[in-house]
Amino acid sequence: MTFPRIFLLFPLFFIAFCHESIDSHSLPRPLILEYPENIEALLAEELRLECTSWRLAAETNNLSPWKTIPQECADYVKDYMNGREYVMDLRRVSEEAKVYANGVELSGDGMDVWIFDIDETLLSNLPYYAEHGYGLEIFDHVDFDKWVEKGMAPAIEPSLKLYEEVLGLGFKVFLLTGRSERHRITTVENLINAGFKDWHRLILRTPDENGKLAILYKSEKRSEMEKEGYRILGNSGDQWSDILGTAMSSRSFKLANPMYFIP
Amino acid sequence: MTFPRIFLLFPLFFIAFCHESIDSHSLPRPLILEYPENIEALLAEELRLECTSWRLAAETNNLSPWKTIPQECADYVKDYMNGREYVMDLRRVSEEAKVYANGVELSGDGMDVWIFDIDETLLSNLPYYAEHGYGLEIFDHVDFDKWVEKGMAPAIEPSLKLYEEVLGLGFKVFLLTGRSERHRITTVENLINAGFKDWHRLILRTPDENGKLAILYKSEKRSEMEKEGYRILGNSGDQWSDILGTAMSSRSFKLANPMYFIP
Repeated sequence: MTFPRIFLLFPLFFIAFCHESIDSHSLPRPLILEYPENIEALLAEELRLECTSWRLAAETNNLSPWKTIPQECADYVKDYMNGREYVMDLRRVSEEAKVYANGVELSGDGMDVWIFDIDETLLSNLPYYAEHGYGLEIFDHVDFDKWVEKGMAPAIEPSLKLYEEVLGLGFKVFLLTGRSERHRITTVENLINAGFKDWHRLILRTPDENGKLAILYKSEKRSEMEKEGYRILGNSGDQWSDILGTAMSSRSFKLANPMYFIP
Repeated sequence: MTFPRIFLLFPLFFIAFCHESIDSHSLPRPLILEYPENIEALLAEELRLECTSWRLAAETNNLSPWKTIPQECADYVKDYMNGREYVMDLRRVSEEAKVYANGVELSGDGMDVWIFDIDETLLSNLPYYAEHGYGLEIFDHVDFDKWVEKGMAPAIEPSLKLYEEVLGLGFKVFLLTGRSERHRITTVENLINAGFKDWHRLILRTPDENGKLAILYKSEKRSEMEKEGYRILGNSGDQWSDILGTAMSSRSFKLANPMYFIP
Protein backbone atom coordinates (compact mmCIF):
# COMPACT_ATOMS: atom_id res chain seq x y z
CA MET A 1 0.00 0.00 0.00
CA THR A 2 1.11 3.58 -0.51
CA PHE A 3 0.06 6.77 1.18
CA PRO A 4 -1.55 9.30 -1.10
CA ARG A 5 1.26 11.87 -1.05
CA ILE A 6 -1.17 14.70 -1.60
CA PHE A 7 -2.57 14.21 1.90
CA LEU A 8 0.82 14.91 3.36
CA LEU A 9 0.68 18.35 1.81
CA PHE A 10 -2.69 19.39 3.25
CA PRO A 11 -1.31 20.43 6.65
CA LEU A 12 1.38 22.43 4.87
CA PHE A 13 -1.13 24.31 2.78
CA PHE A 14 -3.00 24.97 5.98
CA ILE A 15 0.11 26.29 7.65
CA ALA A 16 1.02 28.34 4.60
CA PHE A 17 -2.35 30.07 4.57
CA CYS A 18 -3.33 30.11 8.20
CA HIS A 19 -2.11 33.65 8.84
CA GLU A 20 -4.15 35.12 6.01
CA SER A 21 -7.41 36.76 6.93
CA ILE A 22 -10.68 35.16 5.88
CA ASP A 23 -11.25 37.96 3.37
CA SER A 24 -7.84 37.58 1.78
CA HIS A 25 -9.43 36.51 -1.52
CA SER A 26 -10.26 40.16 -2.12
CA LEU A 27 -6.66 41.27 -1.61
CA PRO A 28 -3.79 41.04 -4.11
CA ARG A 29 -2.25 37.59 -3.80
CA PRO A 30 1.49 37.04 -3.54
CA LEU A 31 2.87 35.08 -6.48
CA ILE A 32 5.31 33.24 -4.27
CA LEU A 33 3.86 31.27 -1.36
CA GLU A 34 5.64 31.72 1.92
CA TYR A 35 6.20 28.23 3.24
CA PRO A 36 7.27 27.92 6.84
CA GLU A 37 11.04 27.71 7.30
CA ASN A 38 10.89 24.30 8.95
CA ILE A 39 8.91 22.71 6.13
CA GLU A 40 11.25 19.70 5.92
CA ALA A 41 10.95 19.00 9.64
CA LEU A 42 7.15 19.26 9.38
CA LEU A 43 7.04 16.86 6.45
CA ALA A 44 9.32 14.42 8.27
CA GLU A 45 7.14 14.54 11.40
CA GLU A 46 4.00 14.02 9.30
CA LEU A 47 5.58 10.97 7.68
CA ARG A 48 6.70 9.59 11.04
CA LEU A 49 3.11 9.86 12.31
CA GLU A 50 1.73 8.15 9.19
CA CYS A 51 4.22 5.30 9.43
CA THR A 52 3.65 4.87 13.17
CA SER A 53 -0.07 4.63 12.45
CA TRP A 54 0.58 2.14 9.65
CA ARG A 55 2.72 0.03 11.99
CA LEU A 56 0.01 0.00 14.66
CA ALA A 57 -2.53 -1.10 12.06
CA ALA A 58 -0.18 -3.88 10.94
CA GLU A 59 0.50 -5.04 14.51
CA THR A 60 -3.22 -5.07 15.41
CA ASN A 61 -4.15 -7.11 12.33
CA ASN A 62 -6.21 -4.34 10.79
CA LEU A 63 -4.56 -4.33 7.36
CA SER A 64 -5.61 -6.29 4.34
CA PRO A 65 -2.98 -8.85 3.36
CA TRP A 66 0.16 -6.95 2.28
CA LYS A 67 3.28 -7.99 0.40
CA THR A 68 5.70 -5.16 1.08
CA ILE A 69 5.94 -2.31 3.54
CA PRO A 70 4.87 1.10 2.20
CA GLN A 71 7.65 2.68 0.14
CA GLU A 72 7.36 5.87 2.20
CA CYS A 73 8.01 3.97 5.43
CA ALA A 74 11.21 2.25 4.29
CA ASP A 75 13.46 4.45 6.46
CA TYR A 76 10.98 4.35 9.33
CA VAL A 77 10.89 0.54 9.43
CA LYS A 78 14.67 0.36 9.09
CA ASP A 79 15.11 2.77 12.01
CA TYR A 80 12.56 0.90 14.12
CA MET A 81 14.14 -2.50 13.51
CA ASN A 82 17.61 -1.22 14.35
CA GLY A 83 16.60 1.09 17.15
CA ARG A 84 15.81 0.72 20.83
CA GLU A 85 12.04 0.49 20.40
CA TYR A 86 12.03 -2.93 18.70
CA VAL A 87 14.20 -4.30 21.52
CA MET A 88 11.91 -2.68 24.09
CA ASP A 89 8.86 -4.20 22.42
CA LEU A 90 10.47 -7.67 22.37
CA ARG A 91 11.46 -7.38 26.03
CA ARG A 92 8.02 -6.28 27.09
CA VAL A 93 6.19 -9.16 25.42
CA SER A 94 8.70 -11.60 26.94
CA GLU A 95 8.20 -10.10 30.41
CA GLU A 96 4.40 -10.16 30.09
CA ALA A 97 4.51 -13.79 28.96
CA LYS A 98 6.76 -14.68 31.91
CA VAL A 99 4.32 -13.10 34.37
CA TYR A 100 1.48 -15.08 32.81
CA ALA A 101 3.49 -18.33 32.69
CA ASN A 102 4.36 -18.03 36.37
CA GLY A 103 0.71 -17.50 37.26
CA VAL A 104 -0.54 -20.60 35.43
CA GLU A 105 -1.24 -23.64 37.59
CA LEU A 106 0.25 -26.60 35.76
CA SER A 107 -1.31 -30.02 36.09
CA GLY A 108 2.04 -31.77 36.39
CA ASP A 109 1.02 -34.53 33.99
CA GLY A 110 3.32 -33.25 31.25
CA MET A 111 0.44 -32.20 29.01
CA ASP A 112 0.72 -28.41 29.51
CA VAL A 113 2.08 -26.84 26.35
CA TRP A 114 3.71 -23.60 25.28
CA ILE A 115 4.02 -23.15 21.52
CA PHE A 116 6.73 -21.04 19.92
CA ASP A 117 6.94 -19.96 16.32
CA ILE A 118 10.54 -19.77 15.05
CA ASP A 119 11.23 -16.95 12.57
CA GLU A 120 11.12 -13.49 14.16
CA THR A 121 10.00 -15.22 17.37
CA LEU A 122 12.92 -17.38 18.55
CA LEU A 123 15.36 -16.67 15.72
CA SER A 124 15.95 -13.32 14.08
CA ASN A 125 16.29 -12.98 10.30
CA LEU A 126 17.21 -9.33 10.64
CA PRO A 127 20.62 -9.88 8.95
CA TYR A 128 18.72 -11.20 5.90
CA TYR A 129 16.09 -8.48 5.86
CA ALA A 130 18.74 -5.78 6.32
CA GLU A 131 20.01 -6.88 2.90
CA HIS A 132 16.49 -6.81 1.44
CA GLY A 133 15.09 -3.43 2.44
CA TYR A 134 13.47 -4.55 5.71
CA GLY A 135 10.36 -5.76 3.90
CA LEU A 136 10.48 -3.28 1.03
CA GLU A 137 11.34 -6.03 -1.47
CA ILE A 138 8.84 -8.73 -2.46
CA PHE A 139 9.64 -11.91 -0.53
CA ASP A 140 12.01 -14.16 -2.49
CA HIS A 141 11.63 -17.80 -1.39
CA VAL A 142 14.78 -18.99 -3.12
CA ASP A 143 16.96 -16.30 -1.64
CA PHE A 144 15.45 -16.67 1.82
CA ASP A 145 15.94 -20.44 1.72
CA LYS A 146 19.65 -19.88 1.03
CA TRP A 147 19.82 -17.70 4.15
CA VAL A 148 17.94 -20.33 6.21
CA GLU A 149 20.38 -23.02 5.05
CA LYS A 150 23.29 -20.98 6.42
CA GLY A 151 21.82 -21.67 9.88
CA MET A 152 23.16 -18.40 11.18
CA ALA A 153 20.04 -16.68 12.46
CA PRO A 154 20.76 -15.25 15.92
CA ALA A 155 18.51 -15.80 18.93
CA ILE A 156 15.97 -13.18 19.89
CA GLU A 157 17.37 -12.84 23.41
CA PRO A 158 14.17 -11.89 25.29
CA SER A 159 12.47 -14.92 23.69
CA LEU A 160 15.34 -17.18 24.77
CA LYS A 161 14.81 -15.99 28.35
CA LEU A 162 11.08 -16.75 28.11
CA TYR A 163 11.84 -20.11 26.52
CA GLU A 164 14.10 -21.10 29.41
CA GLU A 165 11.56 -19.81 31.92
CA VAL A 166 8.63 -21.85 30.59
CA LEU A 167 10.83 -24.96 30.33
CA GLY A 168 11.89 -24.45 33.92
CA LEU A 169 8.28 -24.10 35.01
CA GLY A 170 7.48 -27.49 33.50
CA PHE A 171 5.73 -26.58 30.24
CA LYS A 172 6.25 -28.88 27.27
CA VAL A 173 7.63 -26.75 24.46
CA PHE A 174 6.37 -27.26 20.90
CA LEU A 175 8.02 -25.43 18.03
CA LEU A 176 5.53 -24.80 15.24
CA THR A 177 7.06 -23.19 12.17
CA GLY A 178 6.14 -22.40 8.59
CA ARG A 179 9.60 -23.63 7.55
CA SER A 180 9.54 -26.77 5.47
CA GLU A 181 10.76 -30.24 6.51
CA ARG A 182 13.73 -29.99 4.17
CA HIS A 183 15.19 -27.36 6.49
CA ARG A 184 14.88 -29.58 9.58
CA ILE A 185 18.56 -30.37 10.09
CA THR A 186 19.75 -26.79 9.60
CA THR A 187 16.93 -25.47 11.75
CA VAL A 188 17.80 -27.83 14.62
CA GLU A 189 21.48 -26.86 14.39
CA ASN A 190 20.65 -23.17 14.22
CA LEU A 191 18.32 -23.40 17.23
CA ILE A 192 20.86 -25.29 19.32
CA ASN A 193 23.71 -22.94 18.39
CA ALA A 194 21.47 -20.01 19.35
CA GLY A 195 20.86 -21.54 22.80
CA PHE A 196 17.50 -23.30 22.40
CA LYS A 197 17.22 -26.89 23.59
CA ASP A 198 14.95 -29.48 25.19
CA TRP A 199 11.90 -28.80 23.01
CA HIS A 200 9.41 -31.64 22.96
CA ARG A 201 8.52 -31.49 19.28
CA LEU A 202 9.59 -29.47 16.24
CA ILE A 203 6.79 -29.27 13.66
CA LEU A 204 7.70 -28.21 10.12
CA ARG A 205 5.59 -28.20 6.96
CA THR A 206 5.50 -31.51 5.11
CA PRO A 207 5.63 -31.25 1.29
CA ASP A 208 1.83 -31.59 1.00
CA GLU A 209 1.34 -28.73 3.46
CA ASN A 210 3.51 -26.29 1.58
CA GLY A 211 0.71 -24.51 -0.24
CA LYS A 212 -1.56 -24.21 2.79
CA LEU A 213 -2.30 -20.86 4.44
CA ALA A 214 -0.28 -20.55 7.64
CA ILE A 215 -3.38 -19.83 9.71
CA LEU A 216 -4.95 -23.13 8.56
CA TYR A 217 -1.75 -25.18 8.81
CA LYS A 218 -1.02 -23.94 12.34
CA SER A 219 -4.67 -24.35 13.44
CA GLU A 220 -4.61 -27.97 12.23
CA LYS A 221 -1.39 -28.68 14.11
CA ARG A 222 -2.79 -27.16 17.30
CA SER A 223 -6.01 -29.17 16.88
CA GLU A 224 -3.92 -32.34 16.57
CA MET A 225 -2.11 -31.47 19.81
CA GLU A 226 -5.43 -31.02 21.58
CA LYS A 227 -6.65 -34.35 20.23
CA GLU A 228 -3.54 -35.95 21.74
CA GLY A 229 -4.64 -34.49 25.08
CA TYR A 230 -2.28 -31.54 25.27
CA ARG A 231 -3.51 -28.30 26.83
CA ILE A 232 -2.20 -25.27 24.91
CA LEU A 233 -1.68 -22.65 27.60
CA GLY A 234 0.75 -20.28 25.92
CA ASN A 235 1.63 -19.35 22.34
CA SER A 236 4.25 -16.89 21.11
CA GLY A 237 4.41 -15.69 17.52
CA ASP A 238 5.12 -12.62 15.42
CA GLN A 239 2.22 -13.20 13.01
CA TRP A 240 -1.51 -13.24 13.73
CA SER A 241 -1.58 -16.45 11.68
CA ASP A 242 0.49 -17.98 14.52
CA ILE A 243 -2.23 -17.07 16.98
CA LEU A 244 -5.72 -16.96 15.44
CA GLY A 245 -7.82 -19.79 13.97
CA THR A 246 -8.97 -22.90 15.81
CA ALA A 247 -7.59 -24.57 18.95
CA MET A 248 -6.31 -21.18 20.05
CA SER A 249 -4.10 -20.97 23.11
CA SER A 250 -5.46 -19.80 26.48
CA ARG A 251 -3.21 -16.81 26.01
CA SER A 252 -1.16 -15.71 23.05
CA PHE A 253 1.67 -13.24 22.73
CA LYS A 254 2.20 -11.21 19.57
CA LEU A 255 5.81 -10.24 18.97
CA ALA A 256 6.46 -7.12 16.94
CA ASN A 257 7.26 -7.52 13.25
CA PRO A 258 6.50 -4.71 10.82
CA MET A 259 8.59 -6.25 8.01
CA TYR A 260 6.28 -8.87 6.57
CA PHE A 261 2.82 -10.42 6.71
CA ILE A 262 2.03 -14.12 6.48
CA PRO A 263 -1.65 -14.98 5.94
CA MET B 1 1.81 -1.74 36.23
CA THR B 2 4.72 0.61 36.76
CA PHE B 3 8.06 0.89 35.01
CA PRO B 4 11.06 0.24 37.20
CA ARG B 5 12.42 3.81 37.25
CA ILE B 6 15.97 2.63 37.71
CA PHE B 7 15.99 1.27 34.15
CA LEU B 8 15.32 4.75 32.84
CA LEU B 9 18.63 5.84 34.33
CA PHE B 10 20.83 3.16 32.74
CA PRO B 11 21.21 4.92 29.38
CA LEU B 12 22.11 8.09 31.26
CA PHE B 13 24.87 6.40 33.22
CA PHE B 14 26.07 5.00 29.94
CA ILE B 15 26.09 8.41 28.35
CA ALA B 16 27.76 9.95 31.39
CA PHE B 17 30.63 7.48 31.23
CA CYS B 18 30.91 6.69 27.55
CA HIS B 19 33.73 9.14 26.88
CA GLU B 20 35.95 7.67 29.53
CA SER B 21 38.64 5.27 28.46
CA ILE B 22 38.36 1.60 29.32
CA ASP B 23 41.19 1.96 31.83
CA SER B 24 39.59 4.88 33.61
CA HIS B 25 39.37 2.90 36.82
CA SER B 26 43.08 3.50 37.29
CA LEU B 27 42.71 7.27 36.93
CA PRO B 28 41.57 9.70 39.62
CA ARG B 29 37.78 9.91 39.45
CA PRO B 30 35.88 13.17 39.52
CA LEU B 31 33.68 13.51 42.56
CA ILE B 32 30.95 15.22 40.61
CA LEU B 33 29.54 13.34 37.64
CA GLU B 34 29.15 15.36 34.49
CA TYR B 35 25.67 14.62 33.26
CA PRO B 36 24.85 15.66 29.74
CA GLU B 37 23.25 19.08 29.51
CA ASN B 38 20.14 17.74 27.85
CA ILE B 39 19.40 15.22 30.60
CA GLU B 40 15.74 16.26 30.80
CA ALA B 41 15.21 15.84 27.09
CA LEU B 42 16.86 12.40 27.23
CA LEU B 43 14.66 11.31 30.13
CA ALA B 44 11.57 12.60 28.32
CA GLU B 45 12.50 10.70 25.15
CA GLU B 46 13.15 7.53 27.17
CA LEU B 47 9.72 7.84 28.78
CA ARG B 48 8.08 8.44 25.40
CA LEU B 49 9.65 5.23 24.07
CA GLU B 50 8.56 3.25 27.14
CA CYS B 51 4.99 4.53 26.89
CA THR B 52 4.85 3.92 23.13
CA SER B 53 5.98 0.35 23.79
CA TRP B 54 3.39 -0.02 26.56
CA ARG B 55 0.67 1.24 24.20
CA LEU B 56 1.69 -1.24 21.48
CA ALA B 57 1.56 -4.06 24.04
CA ALA B 58 -1.90 -2.92 25.13
CA GLU B 59 -3.19 -2.66 21.55
CA THR B 60 -1.82 -6.09 20.59
CA ASN B 61 -3.42 -7.77 23.63
CA ASN B 62 -0.10 -8.69 25.19
CA LEU B 63 -0.74 -7.22 28.63
CA SER B 64 -2.21 -8.99 31.60
CA PRO B 65 -5.59 -7.50 32.57
CA TRP B 66 -5.01 -3.92 33.74
CA LYS B 67 -7.16 -1.45 35.65
CA THR B 68 -5.41 1.86 35.05
CA ILE B 69 -2.82 3.19 32.64
CA PRO B 70 0.74 3.41 34.05
CA GLN B 71 1.15 6.54 36.17
CA GLU B 72 4.28 7.48 34.18
CA CYS B 73 2.31 7.45 30.93
CA ALA B 74 -0.49 9.78 32.07
CA ASP B 75 0.74 12.72 29.98
CA TYR B 76 1.61 10.45 27.06
CA VAL B 77 -1.90 8.95 26.88
CA LYS B 78 -3.48 12.40 27.28
CA ASP B 79 -1.35 13.76 24.42
CA TYR B 80 -2.12 10.74 22.23
CA MET B 81 -5.87 10.94 22.79
CA ASN B 82 -5.96 14.66 22.03
CA GLY B 83 -3.40 14.62 19.26
CA ARG B 84 -3.40 13.82 15.56
CA GLU B 85 -2.23 10.22 15.92
CA TYR B 86 -5.42 8.92 17.56
CA VAL B 87 -7.46 10.49 14.76
CA MET B 88 -5.06 9.03 12.17
CA ASP B 89 -5.39 5.58 13.77
CA LEU B 90 -9.20 5.80 13.77
CA ARG B 91 -9.26 6.91 10.14
CA ARG B 92 -6.94 4.14 9.05
CA VAL B 93 -8.97 1.34 10.64
CA SER B 94 -12.14 2.79 9.11
CA GLU B 95 -10.51 2.96 5.66
CA GLU B 96 -9.16 -0.60 5.92
CA ALA B 97 -12.58 -1.85 6.98
CA LYS B 98 -14.21 -0.03 4.03
CA VAL B 99 -11.80 -1.67 1.59
CA TYR B 100 -12.62 -5.07 3.07
CA ALA B 101 -16.39 -4.40 3.15
CA ASN B 102 -16.37 -3.40 -0.51
CA GLY B 103 -14.55 -6.59 -1.43
CA VAL B 104 -16.98 -8.93 0.30
CA GLU B 105 -19.50 -10.65 -1.92
CA LEU B 106 -22.83 -10.40 -0.14
CA SER B 107 -25.45 -13.11 -0.57
CA GLY B 108 -28.30 -10.64 -0.85
CA ASP B 109 -30.53 -12.66 1.48
CA GLY B 110 -30.19 -10.10 4.29
CA MET B 111 -28.21 -12.44 6.50
CA ASP B 112 -24.79 -10.77 6.09
CA VAL B 113 -23.88 -8.98 9.29
CA TRP B 114 -21.48 -6.30 10.45
CA ILE B 115 -21.22 -5.91 14.24
CA PHE B 116 -20.28 -2.65 15.90
CA ASP B 117 -19.41 -2.15 19.53
CA ILE B 118 -20.58 1.27 20.84
CA ASP B 119 -18.25 2.89 23.41
CA GLU B 120 -14.95 4.09 21.87
CA THR B 121 -16.11 2.47 18.61
CA LEU B 122 -19.18 4.41 17.43
CA LEU B 123 -19.47 6.89 20.29
CA SER B 124 -16.60 8.64 22.04
CA ASN B 125 -16.48 9.01 25.80
CA LEU B 126 -13.41 11.21 25.55
CA PRO B 127 -15.20 14.14 27.28
CA TYR B 128 -15.77 11.83 30.28
CA TYR B 129 -12.26 10.38 30.33
CA ALA B 130 -10.72 13.84 29.97
CA GLU B 131 -12.25 14.56 33.39
CA HIS B 132 -10.91 11.27 34.80
CA GLY B 133 -7.25 11.25 33.86
CA TYR B 134 -7.63 9.40 30.53
CA GLY B 135 -7.64 6.04 32.29
CA LEU B 136 -5.42 7.00 35.20
CA GLU B 137 -8.34 6.72 37.65
CA ILE B 138 -9.93 3.39 38.54
CA PHE B 139 -13.16 3.01 36.57
CA ASP B 140 -16.16 4.35 38.51
CA HIS B 141 -19.37 2.68 37.33
CA VAL B 142 -21.68 5.12 39.10
CA ASP B 143 -19.95 8.18 37.69
CA PHE B 144 -19.69 6.70 34.20
CA ASP B 145 -23.39 5.77 34.23
CA LYS B 146 -24.25 9.40 34.97
CA TRP B 147 -22.23 10.41 31.90
CA VAL B 148 -23.95 7.75 29.77
CA GLU B 149 -27.37 9.00 30.90
CA LYS B 150 -26.54 12.48 29.63
CA GLY B 151 -26.59 10.94 26.15
CA MET B 152 -24.03 13.42 24.90
CA ALA B 153 -21.24 11.16 23.63
CA PRO B 154 -20.14 12.44 20.20
CA ALA B 155 -19.78 10.19 17.15
CA ILE B 156 -16.39 8.83 16.21
CA GLU B 157 -16.54 10.32 12.73
CA PRO B 158 -14.46 7.73 10.83
CA SER B 159 -16.66 5.01 12.33
CA LEU B 160 -19.80 6.86 11.25
CA LYS B 161 -18.44 6.89 7.69
CA LEU B 162 -17.77 3.13 7.86
CA TYR B 163 -21.21 2.57 9.40
CA GLU B 164 -22.91 4.37 6.51
CA GLU B 165 -20.75 2.52 3.99
CA VAL B 166 -21.59 -0.97 5.25
CA LEU B 167 -25.29 -0.08 5.47
CA GLY B 168 -25.16 1.17 1.89
CA LEU B 169 -23.48 -2.05 0.77
CA GLY B 170 -26.35 -4.08 2.20
CA PHE B 171 -24.91 -5.41 5.45
CA LYS B 172 -27.28 -5.82 8.38
CA VAL B 173 -25.85 -3.84 11.27
CA PHE B 174 -25.91 -5.27 14.78
CA LEU B 175 -24.87 -3.12 17.70
CA LEU B 176 -23.41 -5.26 20.48
CA THR B 177 -22.53 -3.30 23.60
CA GLY B 178 -21.51 -3.93 27.19
CA ARG B 179 -23.94 -1.19 28.23
CA SER B 180 -26.87 -2.43 30.27
CA GLU B 181 -30.53 -2.56 29.17
CA ARG B 182 -31.43 0.25 31.56
CA HIS B 183 -29.49 2.62 29.32
CA ARG B 184 -31.41 1.58 26.17
CA ILE B 185 -33.48 4.72 25.68
CA THR B 186 -30.59 7.13 26.28
CA THR B 187 -28.30 5.03 24.11
CA VAL B 188 -30.76 5.03 21.21
CA GLU B 189 -31.23 8.79 21.50
CA ASN B 190 -27.48 9.37 21.73
CA LEU B 191 -26.80 7.19 18.70
CA ILE B 192 -29.47 8.90 16.60
CA ASN B 193 -28.34 12.39 17.62
CA ALA B 194 -24.79 11.41 16.69
CA GLY B 195 -25.93 10.35 13.20
CA PHE B 196 -26.32 6.57 13.51
CA LYS B 197 -29.54 5.01 12.24
CA ASP B 198 -31.08 1.98 10.56
CA TRP B 199 -29.37 -0.63 12.71
CA HIS B 200 -31.08 -4.01 12.67
CA ARG B 201 -30.67 -4.84 16.34
CA LEU B 202 -29.24 -3.18 19.44
CA ILE B 203 -28.07 -5.75 21.97
CA LEU B 204 -27.46 -4.60 25.54
CA ARG B 205 -26.73 -6.62 28.68
CA THR B 206 -29.81 -7.94 30.47
CA PRO B 207 -29.67 -7.80 34.31
CA ASP B 208 -28.60 -11.46 34.56
CA GLU B 209 -25.72 -10.82 32.13
CA ASN B 210 -24.25 -7.93 34.10
CA GLY B 211 -21.58 -9.91 35.92
CA LYS B 212 -20.43 -11.86 32.87
CA LEU B 213 -17.01 -11.29 31.26
CA ALA B 214 -17.42 -9.23 28.09
CA ILE B 215 -15.59 -11.82 25.99
CA LEU B 216 -18.09 -14.51 27.06
CA TYR B 217 -21.17 -12.28 26.81
CA LYS B 218 -20.24 -11.09 23.32
CA SER B 219 -19.26 -14.59 22.16
CA GLU B 220 -22.66 -15.89 23.29
CA LYS B 221 -24.48 -13.14 21.45
CA ARG B 222 -22.50 -13.82 18.26
CA SER B 223 -23.19 -17.55 18.59
CA GLU B 224 -26.92 -16.79 18.87
CA MET B 225 -26.71 -14.70 15.68
CA GLU B 226 -25.06 -17.59 13.87
CA LYS B 227 -27.74 -20.00 15.14
CA GLU B 228 -30.33 -17.65 13.62
CA GLY B 229 -28.51 -18.08 10.32
CA TYR B 230 -26.65 -14.79 10.22
CA ARG B 231 -23.15 -14.70 8.73
CA ILE B 232 -20.84 -12.40 10.72
CA LEU B 233 -18.55 -10.91 8.09
CA GLY B 234 -17.29 -7.82 9.85
CA ASN B 235 -16.80 -6.72 13.44
CA SER B 236 -15.51 -3.40 14.77
CA GLY B 237 -14.50 -2.87 18.38
CA ASP B 238 -11.92 -1.13 20.54
CA GLN B 239 -11.43 -4.09 22.91
CA TRP B 240 -10.09 -7.56 22.13
CA SER B 241 -13.07 -8.86 24.12
CA ASP B 242 -15.22 -7.43 21.29
CA ILE B 243 -13.34 -9.57 18.79
CA LEU B 244 -11.98 -12.82 20.29
CA GLY B 245 -13.84 -15.83 21.67
CA THR B 246 -16.30 -18.02 19.77
CA ALA B 247 -18.29 -17.28 16.60
CA MET B 248 -15.59 -14.83 15.58
CA SER B 249 -16.17 -12.61 12.57
CA SER B 250 -14.52 -13.39 9.21
CA ARG B 251 -12.58 -10.19 9.76
CA SER B 252 -12.37 -7.96 12.78
CA PHE B 253 -11.12 -4.42 13.19
CA LYS B 254 -9.48 -3.25 16.40
CA LEU B 255 -9.91 0.45 17.05
CA ALA B 256 -7.28 2.18 19.16
CA ASN B 257 -8.01 2.69 22.84
CA PRO B 258 -5.13 2.97 25.31
CA MET B 259 -7.38 4.29 28.13
CA TYR B 260 -8.99 1.15 29.48
CA PHE B 261 -9.15 -2.63 29.27
CA ILE B 262 -12.32 -4.73 29.41
CA PRO B 263 -11.75 -8.49 29.90
